Amino acid sequence: MKSANSPGPLVIIGGAEDKAEECSILREFVALSGGAKSNIVVIAVASDYPSQVGEKYVETFKRLGAKKVTVLDIRRREDANQDLAVESISKATGVFFTGGTQLRITRQLGGTAVDTELHRRHEEGLVLGGTSAGAAMMSSIMITGGIPSKSFRLGMVELGPGMEFISGVLIDQHFEERGRLRRLLSAIAQYPRDLGIGIDEDTAAIVRDGIMEVKGSGCVTIVDAGGLTFTNITQLKKNDILTMCGIKVHILADGFRFDLKNREPILPKPRDRGAQKSRRTKQGGS
Amino acid sequence: MKSANSPGPLVIIGGAEDKAEECSILREFVALSGGAKSNIVVIAVASDYPSQVGEKYVETFKRLGAKKVTVLDIRRREDANQDLAVESISKATGVFFTGGTQLRITRQLGGTAVDTELHRRHEEGLVLGGTSAGAAMMSSIMITGGIPSKSFRLGMVELGPGMEFISGVLIDQHFEERGRLRRLLSAIAQYPRDLGIGIDEDTAAIVRDGIMEVKGSGCVTIVDAGGLTFTNITQLKKNDILTMCGIKVHILADGFRFDLKNREPILPKPRDRGAQKSRRTKQGGS
Repeated sequence: MKSANSPGPLVIIGGAEDKAEECSILREFVALSGGAKSNIVVIAVASDYPSQVGEKYVETFKRLGAKKVTVLDIRRREDANQDLAVESISKATGVFFTGGTQLRITRQLGGTAVDTELHRRHEEGLVLGGTSAGAAMMSSIMITGGIPSKSFRLGMVELGPGMEFISGVLIDQHFEERGRLRRLLSAIAQYPRDLGIGIDEDTAAIVRDGIMEVKGSGCVTIVDAGGLTFTNITQLKKNDILTMCGIKVHILADGFRFDLKNREPILPKPRDRGAQKSRRTKQGGS
Repeated sequence: MKSANSPGPLVIIGGAEDKAEECSILREFVALSGGAKSNIVVIAVASDYPSQVGEKYVETFKRLGAKKVTVLDIRRREDANQDLAVESISKATGVFFTGGTQLRITRQLGGTAVDTELHRRHEEGLVLGGTSAGAAMMSSIMITGGIPSKSFRLGMVELGPGMEFISGVLIDQHFEERGRLRRLLSAIAQYPRDLGIGIDEDTAAIVRDGIMEVKGSGCVTIVDAGGLTFTNITQLKKNDILTMCGIKVHILADGFRFDLKNREPILPKPRDRGAQKSRRTKQGGS
């Protein structure tokens, strides 16, 4: 855990993270949460099968060395206003949100005592993790769904309020696997100040003090429409085809970092190039 | 047809273009080729079923008002050195390449008398069209294949020499439908002077005098890595994960244009905004 008065790290995972082998992402979440001293609470409210999904994470986090792991069972909003529920968040060193349907998270938790406690504790340093739906809900505005469509259309994305653990960004997950670049773009076209963060499966965007670092086997794609030179968005009706010019894109692999506030990648210094530690090789010219 | 001494238009189609309903793209190809005065040659060498595929285009182009349409049957390289074959290109006003396997086009035609005649006539104004494999082969370097992979890897794209009807670009097709952005990026990372042109299905990039115009129901994505601020490509081995920072992307719908030489979209003037003619609507503020 971080020192008081600085928000805790966010471990935002694109779904389908490794739970069986090296578990590098979940292992990092446990480590950030205090490792052998951690007290992790799993919130599976997004899932259709909260018990099974919750128990799977309990088993995994314990295997990865967490001291205490419990599932906070929230079926109705009342459950999220119980003193015992608030107390479990008060004592947690890390809280993890599973996948499922992101709207369930905001609808069941939004404005409850648990929600308030989550924000209070996160501001003080509580580590928050989430995968898939649990990733999408991290931002102030979240993508709640989207009509799969081959084309780039105004109505292809559905937006709603998120849990507001991070502002200025819009997160999409299963990013490359489900081909969601245009969905994310059609969302940020509506407010290009928001940076689009597209997270591949088994990949995490770990955010600390405004710096995002990539961890995992895929990539994090940063989509910056701040410098947009043209879009026809204001002329369109729902389902019309979008045009967007001058979008900046960064695709970052494991170990690379991005400064969310200054909207730029933190480039490795010439000496520590090749953030992929294990793969450094010398290439001969010919 | 264009006047002599100026290369003919290229109608580069992302595959699966409408052949049954409005046929806006193939209709445009016929019109550019001279409409009721056109003499169109179909080259189906890329296809596994050249006769059927060729005849389908003959039927379609005739239905769309072409005067004469023939299939140039090339099964072996010798066929592409016959006088009659060269003569059919000499008299054509438009030549259309079907889909299939792009390597078959370059291997069967490359360096033959038909190839030479195609280039000579195109320089003088002959219209060239191609869909899918027939689109990929238009550039100097072409994408010949690529391992489908969720990740962004150096070895995910295979490149080879194309037919060189247009230089400075790399074309990919079925672009959104097959999620090929990273494949195209991993190709242009190797030579960022080349602009990546990703063409959706039922969509054409029509190139005339260095200006590309979009036609069809999807989009053309222009990927410009000229301003790349960082890539780890030189440190990687095959199948390692790429990082690329500072890629510029433009996603253009029907009617929008792009200046390939100056690497920038041609933005509509305030008055002719809404290049999608049929869809202009006034949006009320509220």
